[in-house]
Amino acid sequence: MAGSTLGTIFKITTWGESHGKGIGVVVDGCPAGLSLEEKDIQCFLDRRKPGQSKFTTMRNEGDQVEILSGVFEGKTTGTPISMIVWNTDQRSKDYGNIMEVYRPGHADYTFDEKYGFRDYRGGGRSSGRETIGRVAAGAIAACFLRSLGITVTAYTRSVGPYEVKEERFDLKERDQNRLYMPDKETSLLAEQYLEEMMGRKDSVGGVVECIIDGVPAGIGDPVFDKYDASLAKAVMSIGAVKGFEIGDGFLASRALGSENNDGFCMEPDGRAKKVTNHAGGILGGISDGSRVVFRAAFKPTPSIAQPQKTVTRQGEETEIEIKGRHDPIIVPRAVVVVEAMAALTTVDLLLANLSARMDRIISFYREETE
Amino acid sequence: MAGSTLGTIFKITTWGESHGKGIGVVVDGCPAGLSLEEKDIQCFLDRRKPGQSKFTTMRNEGDQVEILSGVFEGKTTGTPISMIVWNTDQRSKDYGNIMEVYRPGHADYTFDEKYGFRDYRGGGRSSGRETIGRVAAGAIAACFLRSLGITVTAYTRSVGPYEVKEERFDLKERDQNRLYMPDKETSLLAEQYLEEMMGRKDSVGGVVECIIDGVPAGIGDPVFDKYDASLAKAVMSIGAVKGFEIGDGFLASRALGSENNDGFCMEPDGRAKKVTNHAGGILGGISDGSRVVFRAAFKPTPSIAQPQKTVTRQGEETEIEIKGRHDPIIVPRAVVVVEAMAALTTVDLLLANLSARMDRIISFYREETE
Amino acid sequence: MAGSTLGTIFKITTWGESHGKGIGVVVDGCPAGLSLEEKDIQCFLDRRKPGQSKFTTMRNEGDQVEILSGVFEGKTTGTPISMIVWNTDQRSKDYGNIMEVYRPGHADYTFDEKYGFRDYRGGGRSSGRETIGRVAAGAIAACFLRSLGITVTAYTRSVGPYEVKEERFDLKERDQNRLYMPDKETSLLAEQYLEEMMGRKDSVGGVVECIIDGVPAGIGDPVFDKYDASLAKAVMSIGAVKGFEIGDGFLASRALGSENNDGFCMEPDGRAKKVTNHAGGILGGISDGSRVVFRAAFKPTPSIAQPQKTVTRQGEETEIEIKGRHDPIIVPRAVVVVEAMAALTTVDLLLANLSARMDRIISFYREETE
Amino acid sequence: MAGSTLGTIFKITTWGESHGKGIGVVVDGCPAGLSLEEKDIQCFLDRRKPGQSKFTTMRNEGDQVEILSGVFEGKTTGTPISMIVWNTDQRSKDYGNIMEVYRPGHADYTFDEKYGFRDYRGGGRSSGRETIGRVAAGAIAACFLRSLGITVTAYTRSVGPYEVKEERFDLKERDQNRLYMPDKETSLLAEQYLEEMMGRKDSVGGVVECIIDGVPAGIGDPVFDKYDASLAKAVMSIGAVKGFEIGDGFLASRALGSENNDGFCMEPDGRAKKVTNHAGGILGGISDGSRVVFRAAFKPTPSIAQPQKTVTRQGEETEIEIKGRHDPIIVPRAVVVVEAMAALTTVDLLLANLSARMDRIISFYREETE
Repeated sequence: MAGSTLGTIFKITTWGESHGKGIGVVVDGCPAGLSLEEKDIQCFLDRRKPGQSKFTTMRNEGDQVEILSGVFEGKTTGTPISMIVWNTDQRSKDYGNIMEVYRPGHADYTFDEKYGFRDYRGGGRSSGRETIGRVAAGAIAACFLRSLGITVTAYTRSVGPYEVKEERFDLKERDQNRLYMPDKETSLLAEQYLEEMMGRKDSVGGVVECIIDGVPAGIGDPVFDKYDASLAKAVMSIGAVKGFEIGDGFLASRALGSENNDGFCMEPDGRAKKVTNHAGGILGGISDGSRVVFRAAFKPTPSIAQPQKTVTRQGEETEIEIKGRHDPIIVPRAVVVVEAMAALTTVDLLLANLSARMDRIISFYREETE
Repeated sequence: MAGSTLGTIFKITTWGESHGKGIGVVVDGCPAGLSLEEKDIQCFLDRRKPGQSKFTTMRNEGDQVEILSGVFEGKTTGTPISMIVWNTDQRSKDYGNIMEVYRPGHADYTFDEKYGFRDYRGGGRSSGRETIGRVAAGAIAACFLRSLGITVTAYTRSVGPYEVKEERFDLKERDQNRLYMPDKETSLLAEQYLEEMMGRKDSVGGVVECIIDGVPAGIGDPVFDKYDASLAKAVMSIGAVKGFEIGDGFLASRALGSENNDGFCMEPDGRAKKVTNHAGGILGGISDGSRVVFRAAFKPTPSIAQPQKTVTRQGEETEIEIKGRHDPIIVPRAVVVVEAMAALTTVDLLLANLSARMDRIISFYREETE
Repeated sequence: MAGSTLGTIFKITTWGESHGKGIGVVVDGCPAGLSLEEKDIQCFLDRRKPGQSKFTTMRNEGDQVEILSGVFEGKTTGTPISMIVWNTDQRSKDYGNIMEVYRPGHADYTFDEKYGFRDYRGGGRSSGRETIGRVAAGAIAACFLRSLGITVTAYTRSVGPYEVKEERFDLKERDQNRLYMPDKETSLLAEQYLEEMMGRKDSVGGVVECIIDGVPAGIGDPVFDKYDASLAKAVMSIGAVKGFEIGDGFLASRALGSENNDGFCMEPDGRAKKVTNHAGGILGGISDGSRVVFRAAFKPTPSIAQPQKTVTRQGEETEIEIKGRHDPIIVPRAVVVVEAMAALTTVDLLLANLSARMDRIISFYREETE
Repeated sequence: MAGSTLGTIFKITTWGESHGKGIGVVVDGCPAGLSLEEKDIQCFLDRRKPGQSKFTTMRNEGDQVEILSGVFEGKTTGTPISMIVWNTDQRSKDYGNIMEVYRPGHADYTFDEKYGFRDYRGGGRSSGRETIGRVAAGAIAACFLRSLGITVTAYTRSVGPYEVKEERFDLKERDQNRLYMPDKETSLLAEQYLEEMMGRKDSVGGVVECIIDGVPAGIGDPVFDKYDASLAKAVMSIGAVKGFEIGDGFLASRALGSENNDGFCMEPDGRAKKVTNHAGGILGGISDGSRVVFRAAFKPTPSIAQPQKTVTRQGEETEIEIKGRHDPIIVPRAVVVVEAMAALTTVDLLLANLSARMDRIISFYREETE
């Protein structure tokens, strides 16, 4: 089935394989009149680019985005925005040994089972490079949100067992930090740990946390298209994500109702506000005006240079050691991917919410015809 | 937006409020020729029915399902299956006090913000009764799966801090257990804990675990419509779910690659098989032929009889004590809802997978015309 | 596949067979706050009801609609509106002879080919009764449109060879006319013709024309979801429709560019306006502010009492004479169905258009948060 | 709204403006294992290319397609197929005069009304060049159909008042004919007529007819997603199409039931077959195994060099003469676009039909696991 499209109103369709000609995305449903330049996209892509530090793969791709349509004289036109990033550094010979052997933790086996064969050069459509399209589209979504005063900020919350301490949390630290961690002290311990594991030819997982500030109350739908459910799907669709939590998440399952419920009080501006935010900004699937907070658990990079037991396409047991350039941890480069998925989901639901109330629709059209 | 529909090929649309005339669902896209009777649905609904034990609300509704269309002489006809459960025991006076006051942990405030007003009798569309439609549809999905040898089994994995012990795990126990817990000893401790919290007018959360056996390899799509991402959305769309994990979930974020990767070996029947199953049966979004395993974290029931701080629609701070009949824990009755969501997601992706390979499509149509 | 849903934002799902328990529809995505009562629906249904005149079948069904959800204290709540009409007068014995024999012009054969068997009592899902759900949903769409000053008006344009004359066109005539024809003189000739054909056990076709007044410019999308293309699908999905035209339709294929192009002039109110309307109110798939005009061609009722050549399910050639109560012409009762489909399509595209422009979205959300 | 996507299972998304960098399409949901090369696409694109004869615009674009993803070693991989045609001959200066003035019969005015502004270089997204993406995708759909023995063949049925005569109909003539007309004698008259109208700076319309051979019975859904309704939308979404007919179309509205019904007989191979085909191969929205036949009416090219009354963006009345290179008739180049839309619709419904029957689904999965 056609599973490369996300969204109902703000709809993105990604395409491209890690070792094909390029990677791209078409964004359909972006409103007309949003200011947009290639550099708005590029700054997002630069955050997921390889080769940024010793903890990211040394593939040296420029990953320069090109906007092919949908933008005219610096503004979106309301028609589809097509973007492409050419693949320039494939070195497909590096990957020759995986043609016949299934890499543990990868989708090689499942692609063969589903499609009968696969593009064996790199991960094909399951490669991390597939996220380029998501990030390029997410950058547009982020521009959209900024114009409504909404910001999406993700960061590394933990690397293996090393987790950010609340008391040292400093968001400014994030952007100078090689691990995108808003806690310098923890990040130094995490770096040591990472180097040790790299020395053992092993890899490490971690958790990304994301906060969305400024979402007005009322976003999301009460049944299947709940805001948190939609975030869950978007975030779980990132390769390597194994868990998702909104607000207190799994901890809420151990709390009491009297602890977990967020009471309401009145703000000086006359708005109701939750006193606490165990819910993570969403009640009954609909945003409540508080900060939205969620987390995603990433597994360790599956590509490791240790020998691993596996089998060949022909059904022989064998061992594999995965050579080549691979991140020892996915998390730092995935931070911007999480932001992208959160932004895309939020924009789609903001647009859906335009049709929630008859009174507003009537005043929208009355204004237009005046 | 229209958020009451789930699925692309096997599509369900639910409707109804807790205190309206009834609750229902339309299942569109169910293949023709599936044997189906009302009792196949009823036995699922009976598992979520209130009034089963002291831990479930005493609302005494029969919750009898009626099939209105799409089934003829005991078989589905390929046309929409409409089902209804009439509401017979609303007692809407019980809920009068929530008309003007926002209940903490409920969607009262967010409904008002989104729609400008709400059906204040009970939770309306956010009530647990909304899941009747899901369960009725899920029962059909479960029949479908059974005919392919696939079974979906969920159970209570933890109640507050009390978690099933692997060494005492006994699935047969589940169906005799008031908490749907496959570990009698733990369930007795959990019952004690529940009674204590009920005495304090408090409520408790927990975790549901679900296993899907018999799914062939190849189900799910590699990008946005990953099997695990689709399960995440379906399960997170159940009210009160705050977290979702596939396989090792958040634990995987603390593991090493060498620990978390599942190696492959060959089975006597000539099939490749994973030696372990940290992945939870899904690789790159596609089923790998192993058992699918996921968990959902439920928050404590938000309705508690303790006084809680809140505000009125008119913007005055006040306190609320929620009277009426409420489960002290949602989990036991939610077990069958989790099964329903898992079954619905699996059927939709099984049908989507029919169009994955050209060779099979050709032989499908060749056969048909012979 | 799930083909019983229409619309993207204002979404309807119909269900029910002619001889099952009832016929219904779920409308999902209707904005909150629209005033709605059962009588707003009923007056639409009464227009398609059988038994209105000698030219409509004598099945005497009350066709009383019941709203089951989504409306509270006279207003829509933003949640799904479920409606049902119970079948009360099935007389399924009348239809027994069609169990094994394929009726020419009906879907009996194609249902058997597609699904392997069929509900042989009446037309099942292909019966004209299926349109009850469309009309009930369309009535809500029409209420929505009225609140924006938009009206949808269809009428019989021709009965067999008898076509309304422009010079005698009188819309007031329509509602007193047994054939819904806005030209009394032509309708009398058409009635004579109908009676003659009924005497010969034959049936007649015709054309329905529909005008939509008050649609603001800008509705519809420029590529696949053009307003006219969407109308075409909605209208062609009515059983018995064999052709669709927007504006001059097939006549435009014989015109010259200089004749067919509609020039623009300025109105006193400062708006641009087309001097003529060959286009039928839509340019490049988007409404241009003029009246939308389209036509649908209906085939003659396929059920006729003459002997016809056909075959049995078992593959034997035979003859069939279709007894029972059948309209000699579908058109008069289909007029309201055409209106319903036009209203539904228009509402869906009006809602989609809310997200066309960034400036309006920003002012929408700014207002909301002020 | 996102209106650039067509299809549910075999899904295409087009992008690109006439004077932007290029035009493209992403095909998502194409099964794996279909043999596909760029030349399979190119031969379709060559049929819609400008500069083929004096009746087609002299824009001399190579319109070379490039496949960017989804094909590996000559076979589709089951992942999205992205294709691009670069714009190489835009000459945007030719179009400068339309920046401020609304061309009659074009979408200039409606784009401005919808989006607040537009890409005024050429028709932007409403240009005929937008069909490049449709034709490239349609070429893949045609390959798919060929592998099932299904062929789609369109041709010019009429040019202005000149219509193909049944008795001279010769499909072999079509491909040597500058007007794609399967009747040489009529085409010569039509050419004369065209030249005369070109001399008068005028333009001409016409009708395209399309036949689909080899569709098995059972394709299409009985309610909204009828095969003919889906064809209608796909075909009406081609710019300049003003009418659609299936089978006898508008003529059926003047026929009697006894004339219009197609009786059944038995074929020597034991299959039921319709004796005639007034229905055009579809009964109740589902294919009946006969040839599918439909027609589309095209308006005359709106761009003419005669002076026409119009207005400016600023609201002044003025005249416009449209210079530049424009086809005097759209029809000959639109023939392949109609084929493309028919092929795309048919493939989508063939894939949807895979899930119609439980028995076939069970045997599909049983085979797979054996």
